[in-house]
Amino acid sequence: MEDKSILTRAVRKYENGVFFDEVDEVAAEFPLTLRLNGEEWATMVCTPSNLEEMVVGFLASEGIIRRYKEITSLSIDREKGFAYIEIDKLPEDRAKNTSKRFIGSCCGKSRQFYFTNDMLTAKTITAKTELTALQAIHHMQELQNHSEEFQRTGGMHNAAICSSTGLIQCYQDIGRHNALDKLYGYCLMNHIPVKDKVIAFSGRISSEVLLKISKMGIGILLSKSAPTNLALELADDLGITAIGFIRGNRMNVYTHPERITEAVLHPSETI
Amino acid sequence: MEDKSILTRAVRKYENGVFFDEVDEVAAEFPLTLRLNGEEWATMVCTPSNLEEMVVGFLASEGIIRRYKEITSLSIDREKGFAYIEIDKLPEDRAKNTSKRFIGSCCGKSRQFYFTNDMLTAKTITAKTELTALQAIHHMQELQNHSEEFQRTGGMHNAAICSSTGLIQCYQDIGRHNALDKLYGYCLMNHIPVKDKVIAFSGRISSEVLLKISKMGIGILLSKSAPTNLALELADDLGITAIGFIRGNRMNVYTHPERITEAVLHPSETI
Repeated sequence: MEDKSILTRAVRKYENGVFFDEVDEVAAEFPLTLRLNGEEWATMVCTPSNLEEMVVGFLASEGIIRRYKEITSLSIDREKGFAYIEIDKLPEDRAKNTSKRFIGSCCGKSRQFYFTNDMLTAKTITAKTELTALQAIHHMQELQNHSEEFQRTGGMHNAAICSSTGLIQCYQDIGRHNALDKLYGYCLMNHIPVKDKVIAFSGRISSEVLLKISKMGIGILLSKSAPTNLALELADDLGITAIGFIRGNRMNVYTHPERITEAVLHPSETI
Repeated sequence: MEDKSILTRAVRKYENGVFFDEVDEVAAEFPLTLRLNGEEWATMVCTPSNLEEMVVGFLASEGIIRRYKEITSLSIDREKGFAYIEIDKLPEDRAKNTSKRFIGSCCGKSRQFYFTNDMLTAKTITAKTELTALQAIHHMQELQNHSEEFQRTGGMHNAAICSSTGLIQCYQDIGRHNALDKLYGYCLMNHIPVKDKVIAFSGRISSEVLLKISKMGIGILLSKSAPTNLALELADDLGITAIGFIRGNRMNVYTHPERITEAVLHPSETI
């Protein structure tokens, strides 16, 4: 199988009372089953691009690895949709607990965790990263400029890691969480320090998204979409600045606004 | 915990260089862990409304039950986020196979299945339901009129079951698949025949969404969003008419267009 994120197919279109046949572009969706030390572990349904990054990011996100070098072997069979991963020291408890409900009184981080693995791997962020409101707007505009695939098929999420000066790397996926796993894998594989970085994201800020940001060690999450209440409670507790509805010249800073410094007026906006 | 889908919280808003504090509405996100015959089985992260319907629909979707009456006991602890389900004849193979990769040459339905449980529970649809293009547009407009929560928080998906004359029941959820499970549960609990019904949906047509439609036994899926290629291959094979991008007076009929009959011109559109 080729590494194609967008496929074409025949579509019957309707407009104002008339049917006509056309060829149109559609987002690909690809099931990839991860076999960890010989055992079936998880199946991810994703956009078939940057699969290595995605697998590495997902393994880190689930607490299976902390560093890229802990993976002794990683090969992907694109034809059959399998990723074969070998790890020397497999933390058996985490490999099993993936989606077991966490029930505890207080773990010192947040009472909002619902999966045991998240409680073990999510980090409280102490990074002092700062950003102006105009920088946040600029990052979101850059993300949208990079979102060609979304505009073509209407079916993709975009996620980018940014420094104070701009976008470093951007990934697309039909799954919100996969786009973030690809970023996480990229950072681990390329030894990118994340403490001073920011993530710009097209999708909604759900608890799952917020937890991935926390596991990566990122202090500021920018989104053009809405958050959920549970994601914001986790952001409060884990020290993450969550900003949503970044559209045009507006945004909502939901948590830890101390990282968003006074707006520096852009020269063109002064009278 | 109260049954609240929308919560309020303080937000720091930014607009054109100025910060100001406001109270805003945010979609709730609620983790519900399902315990099946005393064992932890799955955790769903959802909007905390119509939880009984959602649990019943999810059990049917996963092949644990076929009829509502197979559930001997269902109680939900909203405070702790647990659903306790008792079933007399638990199909052990399906309870275990939930997300095991399906690898087969051909099962007579579709080669596109990736989970064993889907292969066992998805149905090929032979329903002869028909719809005109204008009826499809009308159903989508009705769905949007019922989407108050989405407009308030920007974080909800909507799904409705419709007859030829209009919308029968509509559910909201932050998770696309949960909104469909709520509909499925509603149909099972109220003995609604589905063969002549249509589903109108706000979200993307992914393979997971398409498979749920097939399990419900529905022949026509209407969406205002984009499909994925895998979903359309499944729709081709399973006999489902998948229509996307229903916006204004336009739509894309991707599969089985034979169910969409000639457009009947609306009186106001005739010259």
